[in-house]
Amino acid sequence: MAILFRFTTIILFSLLSLLCFSLTSSHFIPRFPSSPILPELKQRSHSAQNVPYKTKFFTQILDHFNFNPQSYETFQQRYLINDTYWGGAKKKAPIFVYTGNEGNIEWFTQNTGFMFEKAPHFHALLVFIEHRFYGKSIPFGGNKNVAYSDNTKLGYLSSTQALADYATLIIDLKKNLSATQSPVVVFGGSYGGMLAAWFRIKYPHVAIGALASSAPILQFMGLSSPDIFTSIITQDFRGESENCYKIIKGSWKLIEEVAKKHGGVEVLRKTFRLCNKYIDASALEGWLRSAWIYTAMTDYPTPSNFLNPMPANPVKKMCEAIEMGKNTLGKLYAAANIYYNYSGTETCFDLYDDSDPHDLGGWQWQACTEMIMPVGGSNKESMFPESEWSYEDRVTSCQSFFNVTPRPHWITTEFGGHDIELFLKRSASNIIFFNGLRDPWSGGGVLKNISETLVAIVAKKGAHHVDLRYSTKEDPKWLKDVREQEVKIIASWISQYYQDLQSHD
Amino acid sequence: MAILFRFTTIILFSLLSLLCFSLTSSHFIPRFPSSPILPELKQRSHSAQNVPYKTKFFTQILDHFNFNPQSYETFQQRYLINDTYWGGAKKKAPIFVYTGNEGNIEWFTQNTGFMFEKAPHFHALLVFIEHRFYGKSIPFGGNKNVAYSDNTKLGYLSSTQALADYATLIIDLKKNLSATQSPVVVFGGSYGGMLAAWFRIKYPHVAIGALASSAPILQFMGLSSPDIFTSIITQDFRGESENCYKIIKGSWKLIEEVAKKHGGVEVLRKTFRLCNKYIDASALEGWLRSAWIYTAMTDYPTPSNFLNPMPANPVKKMCEAIEMGKNTLGKLYAAANIYYNYSGTETCFDLYDDSDPHDLGGWQWQACTEMIMPVGGSNKESMFPESEWSYEDRVTSCQSFFNVTPRPHWITTEFGGHDIELFLKRSASNIIFFNGLRDPWSGGGVLKNISETLVAIVAKKGAHHVDLRYSTKEDPKWLKDVREQEVKIIASWISQYYQDLQSHD
Repeated sequence: MAILFRFTTIILFSLLSLLCFSLTSSHFIPRFPSSPILPELKQRSHSAQNVPYKTKFFTQILDHFNFNPQSYETFQQRYLINDTYWGGAKKKAPIFVYTGNEGNIEWFTQNTGFMFEKAPHFHALLVFIEHRFYGKSIPFGGNKNVAYSDNTKLGYLSSTQALADYATLIIDLKKNLSATQSPVVVFGGSYGGMLAAWFRIKYPHVAIGALASSAPILQFMGLSSPDIFTSIITQDFRGESENCYKIIKGSWKLIEEVAKKHGGVEVLRKTFRLCNKYIDASALEGWLRSAWIYTAMTDYPTPSNFLNPMPANPVKKMCEAIEMGKNTLGKLYAAANIYYNYSGTETCFDLYDDSDPHDLGGWQWQACTEMIMPVGGSNKESMFPESEWSYEDRVTSCQSFFNVTPRPHWITTEFGGHDIELFLKRSASNIIFFNGLRDPWSGGGVLKNISETLVAIVAKKGAHHVDLRYSTKEDPKWLKDVREQEVKIIASWISQYYQDLQSHD
Repeated sequence: MAILFRFTTIILFSLLSLLCFSLTSSHFIPRFPSSPILPELKQRSHSAQNVPYKTKFFTQILDHFNFNPQSYETFQQRYLINDTYWGGAKKKAPIFVYTGNEGNIEWFTQNTGFMFEKAPHFHALLVFIEHRFYGKSIPFGGNKNVAYSDNTKLGYLSSTQALADYATLIIDLKKNLSATQSPVVVFGGSYGGMLAAWFRIKYPHVAIGALASSAPILQFMGLSSPDIFTSIITQDFRGESENCYKIIKGSWKLIEEVAKKHGGVEVLRKTFRLCNKYIDASALEGWLRSAWIYTAMTDYPTPSNFLNPMPANPVKKMCEAIEMGKNTLGKLYAAANIYYNYSGTETCFDLYDDSDPHDLGGWQWQACTEMIMPVGGSNKESMFPESEWSYEDRVTSCQSFFNVTPRPHWITTEFGGHDIELFLKRSASNIIFFNGLRDPWSGGGVLKNISETLVAIVAKKGAHHVDLRYSTKEDPKWLKDVREQEVKIIASWISQYYQDLQSHD
């Protein structure tokens, strides 16, 4: 288990973990936890709402694409199901499926209130499928120690296998429910959104449409600039105030200078209320960087509790805290405190906390094999230290950590991406690509309509898959409008399906 | 090598090998060559035309979908290339790719004159890619003895791996030719046609369209009746003359009766000019069955030499021979002689010939894993003995022969098939499904237009991928029309692509 625990230390949540490859050192060079371990937040598994579902398990095949004896092995794949609002098989009522991300499916379910809220309107059955190798869906006897023990086993953790899992499970479930004619719509946010979009492209006979929220399917080598991510975060903070931006931009040098001084480390320890006796400056920098990044991603317009409890518009709140702080270090602390301690319950912060409550550890493997998503370079304007994203560094890290070499062009070979408009225009349909422009991942998203049925919904003030969250009374009009537009489009897919079905029968 | 050689004895060519699972015993029960070995034709590798190409090899990855250490192994994949007519990368001239079937790619290339004949019109580059595990494209060091030695290696022989091979090779080739903007159109006949159609559905970012000729993508469990295949053959012969049909229909009982009589086997040996000293009736029946089946499949309107040298309209010729023969056995011999000895060079026939000149042996594995295409049942009207296709028998055979259990629903899970019109209508485009209705495989083909761009071309008098063959002076008008229609449609895809490209740039 040593390996597993060590590499979860640089995992965060959802697509964040992608980032950690690039942003873990002070110069944005990929780093594995073998040397100074990245400080991370303590993630708490709060449920915003009391989400009702039944837990089930499906006997899933290990390897869909080969026929070696080992490929016939099976594992128990978890899925959650809610039939409260379902109109039933006889009425061919729809089935809404969440294509699980890189983590515990319960967590994603709790944070996808949109599906629960819209199920009554659509009389939809809700199904949330857990991604293989995450949560309770662990091959090789359900034993994570075994499944993550070496390459020969981890090798079965891949996006194409996950998509085939979803197809297999959905087809079987529909058959068991005698609901083969019920239309399936897939939903997903972040990596789950990428899977939802790819699922609609690759399995159009299983899903009639996909809502792909904040799905950076273009954040791959040769498609997007690696520094778009940091540019967006910079813009989020700078948009609040020029001074906020300047303070953060100048902080990296300041921290290093303070740390070098006699007694400086002690100053940092006290200012930032760190629990650790011994710290290094780069760990502190990583801790702050995480705060800025994750806050930008979850810069929701209402109070939320996805990663941590957070106020509405937390970036704005951070910049306000920076304005009010006494000195530069105090300003940074006050801002970071909004991310790490909004509930006010923390007495000190552990820079080297390596807990992984949402079970996201497997992403590190995915980021070392197929998910080569360049992120973390920065330009002169960036509030982060200047750096360049390096594929070679990724290779070195992955070889030393997993003894595996990435396949950097596999995702675009399998799913496309180059000239996506040109190629998807006439060969795919019924996908909504939602992106919020405050979300750094929107830089790798589909931001323009590709065709009448491949629709980009772009919310200038939106953050990471905000549309999928539970609604609140305080939701701004633009967010209500986004959800309304999504509902309308999904309704049109379903209605068209029923029409097609009628003329087909 | 023992295993390999033994199972190639029941392989024929192209999709025929599928059939052998079901038609190898006198009651259409799947049989492996462990007991009375099926007599098969000697296949000769004649090239109808002098086909010009260069042979190249591509370093291909063994397993695209997993990341185990073994998946990183590579093999040399053969492809044939002809740039005589290519307009070049600068002009973004098209690339026509043949998605290789289950055999030596040179053989399929020689029998796909259509691509060579149309290349000048389109200024197209021609590429013919060999399917993994066939011909010279053998993983595990290029050594067939090793690659076919057991399940752990044969397991990598699958259609999804083959499609990913094609995508990987095409993308790399285009990059190397600086021709990333050249449109790719894929072509294939029979299993190659299935792959072409699936490739367009799954890799729309790699190929702008597909000509899928005689591709029985609906000949899977739960989609088509198993006895449609024999029904079509029956109709082919019965359509020539009622007497022809009756003679064949009555022959099975007759042969068994003769064989039982004292000296009867000797009568059969002499009548059918068999080289073998010892024969059994079921082997002779299999030999005749093969003749009827393969002749129906290749019932071309002009002389041909795909499997064997054959006259024009060979089914008609067989029925004429049956009319003219002296007694029933003599009639059968005269008809079979058209298939097995039209060139007149054979002095006797070997019922137990197990040569495999086109290197088709791997299909047996595919038919034991994913290619569960029920074929071979028959009804009362059938000219073949009554029988039922049995999935259970297939399982038993595959377990005993390969120690492998089929995954009968995998192909429809991965590629669809149920309600194909309903689901492909709005999620795919640019596929031509050609079928000739004299071809028994047309029973599993797409015979109706699905949409404006998913077009079925059906030729009442056509046989197995006749459209892809070299043209001859004697070609009937309907065949010329079919090819003209195909050229027009392909031209429209290419022209639309250039338009899209222009508005995209």
